[in-house]
Amino acid sequence: MNTSTDARGRLVAAAQEMFAAQGVGATSPRQVLAASGVGQGSLYHHFPTKHDLAAAAVGATVADALAAARRDLDDAPDGDRTDALARVVAYLERPRDALAGCKVGRLTSDQAVMDDDGLRDVVTAYFVRLLDAVAATLRDAGLPEGAARDRAHAAVAIVQGGYVLARATGDPDAMRAAVRGFVTLLTDNPEETA
Amino acid sequence: MNTSTDARGRLVAAAQEMFAAQGVGATSPRQVLAASGVGQGSLYHHFPTKHDLAAAAVGATVADALAAARRDLDDAPDGDRTDALARVVAYLERPRDALAGCKVGRLTSDQAVMDDDGLRDVVTAYFVRLLDAVAATLRDAGLPEGAARDRAHAAVAIVQGGYVLARATGDPDAMRAAVRGFVTLLTDNPEETA
Repeated sequence: MNTSTDARGRLVAAAQEMFAAQGVGATSPRQVLAASGVGQGSLYHHFPTKHDLAAAAVGATVADALAAARRDLDDAPDGDRTDALARVVAYLERPRDALAGCKVGRLTSDQAVMDDDGLRDVVTAYFVRLLDAVAATLRDAGLPEGAARDRAHAAVAIVQGGYVLARATGDPDAMRAAVRGFVTLLTDNPEETA
Repeated sequence: MNTSTDARGRLVAAAQEMFAAQGVGATSPRQVLAASGVGQGSLYHHFPTKHDLAAAAVGATVADALAAARRDLDDAPDGDRTDALARVVAYLERPRDALAGCKVGRLTSDQAVMDDDGLRDVVTAYFVRLLDAVAATLRDAGLPEGAARDRAHAAVAIVQGGYVLARATGDPDAMRAAVRGFVTLLTDNPEETA
């Protein structure tokens, strides 16, 4: 990695941190510049506008989150049914910093993101891909298409809602309780009975 | 209702609308005053500070949301088990403006609320009471204490996460799919089998 890409990476990493902590709207490129420790010329070279910087940082946050989900969900070579359900449970039970909130989910409450078509599309694409990945794993576990999609929406909603509950109550156990309540139901019903 | 309480009510209603649309931090008392149509003297008479206005509006939003949940969840006179589960399903399936987001849940992403101990406590109390009400209904449905609490957290997380998914994808069906996926599991498992 040369000095230029290193400066770019430090700018993106600093923007990701600050966006997660205080939102996109409340973060100025100048603050990101100060936090990153790179020279001012690098900022304007790599990111002429705040939109360019926000797109890179939101894109990196989404790529990180999707990669983490895929590590939990991706196919085992044998395609075993029980194993597929265990992968969904692993996705649900992965330790999360509940009080910090989901770095992607919180962007849906960030007006500066939702008012910007380009940024909103990146957030939308994350959830569409995540829901597809969970639904595919639930189909591997033996669920028919419609039930797999509904249950995938429920699984992702449990994680997102768990973050909301943890932040609202100031208690990370609130998220763990939501996941536990859902996983108990999920593993008692590995296949559609209706 | 005299003119003074009417002016107070209009100020609170206008603040509730604007907080839901653009957040507490981005809303000035002056904007609320303009939207309410009341005289400037009324604003400073009823709400000397922005905190006073925010506390009244957040309190009213929480009271409305809790009353709506209690209408779905409150005990039927006969305490019938199936009926108790049906009440939880009614809470989950109540039609919601999914794309607008939860008026209370979104406050957990509003830094102006979470940084203010008084406002944050009002939001926390809402979720504690809502979780208690859902857990009590699930105990009426025959679940033991621990399972009822976990499943109540899951139910409230489904609603909150459903809002996040609907806003993120721009599709209100995303919330309905999450609720449907959870309700199918819930009604297939009316009692703890583990």
